[in-house]
Amino acid sequence: MVGWLQSPEGVGDPGRVHTEGTVARAAVEAARDQVAALLGTRARQIVFTSGGTEAVNAAVFGGSRLHPGRPILLAEVEHSSVRDASARAGPVVTLPVDHHGRIDPDTLGATLDALARSGTPAGLVHCQAANHEVGTTQPVSAVVELCREAGAVLHVDACIAAGHVALALDDLGADLVSVSAHKMGGPPGTGALVLRRGLRVEPLILGGEQERARRGGLENVPAIVGFGAAAAAVSARLTAEADTARRHTEALLAAATAVDDVAPLGDPARRVPHVVSVAVGGVEAEPVVLALDQAGVAVHSGSACSSESLAPSPVLAAMGADAERSLRLSVGWSTTDADVDAFAGAFAGVVARLRLLRG
Amino acid sequence: MVGWLQSPEGVGDPGRVHTEGTVARAAVEAARDQVAALLGTRARQIVFTSGGTEAVNAAVFGGSRLHPGRPILLAEVEHSSVRDASARAGPVVTLPVDHHGRIDPDTLGATLDALARSGTPAGLVHCQAANHEVGTTQPVSAVVELCREAGAVLHVDACIAAGHVALALDDLGADLVSVSAHKMGGPPGTGALVLRRGLRVEPLILGGEQERARRGGLENVPAIVGFGAAAAAVSARLTAEADTARRHTEALLAAATAVDDVAPLGDPARRVPHVVSVAVGGVEAEPVVLALDQAGVAVHSGSACSSESLAPSPVLAAMGADAERSLRLSVGWSTTDADVDAFAGAFAGVVARLRLLRG
Repeated sequence: MVGWLQSPEGVGDPGRVHTEGTVARAAVEAARDQVAALLGTRARQIVFTSGGTEAVNAAVFGGSRLHPGRPILLAEVEHSSVRDASARAGPVVTLPVDHHGRIDPDTLGATLDALARSGTPAGLVHCQAANHEVGTTQPVSAVVELCREAGAVLHVDACIAAGHVALALDDLGADLVSVSAHKMGGPPGTGALVLRRGLRVEPLILGGEQERARRGGLENVPAIVGFGAAAAAVSARLTAEADTARRHTEALLAAATAVDDVAPLGDPARRVPHVVSVAVGGVEAEPVVLALDQAGVAVHSGSACSSESLAPSPVLAAMGADAERSLRLSVGWSTTDADVDAFAGAFAGVVARLRLLRG
Repeated sequence: MVGWLQSPEGVGDPGRVHTEGTVARAAVEAARDQVAALLGTRARQIVFTSGGTEAVNAAVFGGSRLHPGRPILLAEVEHSSVRDASARAGPVVTLPVDHHGRIDPDTLGATLDALARSGTPAGLVHCQAANHEVGTTQPVSAVVELCREAGAVLHVDACIAAGHVALALDDLGADLVSVSAHKMGGPPGTGALVLRRGLRVEPLILGGEQERARRGGLENVPAIVGFGAAAAAVSARLTAEADTARRHTEALLAAATAVDDVAPLGDPARRVPHVVSVAVGGVEAEPVVLALDQAGVAVHSGSACSSESLAPSPVLAAMGADAERSLRLSVGWSTTDADVDAFAGAFAGVVARLRLLRG
């Protein structure tokens, strides 16, 4: 193509009819197919967003508006995006969790019944697929059934689970599912809201007919293409990656809990394979992170999205954990046995030095 | 750095305390300085978003909530993101425009007075810096004064103007300004909401303390860095680029209007340098775009963000233009004299052939 005029956008806009636009459109649709295949749903159920957080906000906004004013049910272990957006969207009813951070379907069922009897049936229910701090998975299939019976909209935050455990979203039947690209090895700047077949919700971001009028604004084509590529790569090796990740996180957990007064947090069995979490007695999590960093090991203190805030974790409080802060240990596709060994070699010494400093 | 554990995010998260996170944080803040310098404001006034559309939606949401329930004033020439989000946020009062698409400060002043007298003073006023379809600039400074006197919040959609005309936002004094990265040659997937010093508005997207708790979600670090680089490049050559763009668009306009029954749309003098628009009599804009594309020239039919919708343009309707559709001709930093010549060489023939087919 010679002699074309530069668009003010500077890149191919898939909404355009000219060649540049057509090529971009085809790339976006190919990525949509790849993401849909990974998630076990149809391409047209996928709405690309700017990331998991926008997907969650869109789910809360759109989902709550299907039954305006009705209570929103969630456990305090949900991500802050779910909690904060829900607190704005309507009255919130809190569900308890056990010491692993898991909700109990019987308790949810009883709460749904009680709300219905009181004349204010639940409008929207949140159930994360897996916890972002401790990795515990939730009984999502049972929750889907209960919400369907109660006539409540169900949103599943799958940002931590997607790409790490197999998801068959069409079979699952949740109304709204939010997914992040970068948490499965894709680029930042994109994610997806997955809508149950036939469900229409009000868009969070208006201004254009993009994404079948479900999300306004120019599509982030390069990020979406990267999301598709990541989804395809993950699809091809999900089981193998999960096996490796579980082996790595089990080794991390063993090394960490071998140290005195270091306790596992979350469910050691029913969890995503790539995340484990520990409570480290006698020291703050933050200096552990910094000292491990100096030793060449990056770990996370607390949630993926609240590390600027130094407030204690609501996840641990909801679980009734002794600790105020967790040390999250997570692995990815590029983690090697040597990385895990480096952690195992450094952790005990780091904790011992910090305890000496405090003692 | 050896032996670090892969974060589930896969990329550096600037919210983290470890080295990986610190490097990303420094890159984001350097980009913020670059964008602030281009826009004539302080870095801390900049809130990075996923693009211009999100910035506009955040401005509408946050701005309207400062005076809940009060009327929102806008002209129908505003972008669909401004119109659609405002229609959801509150009662809308429409301002008329002249045949160039420009609002009249006297009319705005009279409208603000009338609303105040009626007991429902304006809450939020929108005034685009420049129109997205025809390029006409608005008398923004006068509008700032009027809104200040009336106690109304002013949002300026500068997505088309930023990076193409000099903006001194701190001097201008608008409350909320929305900007797109990709419309100034930066990458897709980022943009900015610029807040007047001291102004706090409710975030559109919640879930994390990022952007000083003004926009939740992992920062799109690579896109933000690209935004900064584009802003720095544009800052260094704004005048030269604008001169070239004006020469190119004047040549395009001359070539187009040399054809019988092709009329300019928008203000030929007070407009952004890189966008002009014409009405082509006797043919639809869409086949002109396709035929020019076959000739190797990409142009745009209608707005940047509504090309999936084939509805007639509300911009032209508001201007009282004869045409139902515009052909937007825009240039960018990579446009050459040869590109303009290619358009000039192809346009007359394309229009003649299409008219023959219809005739």
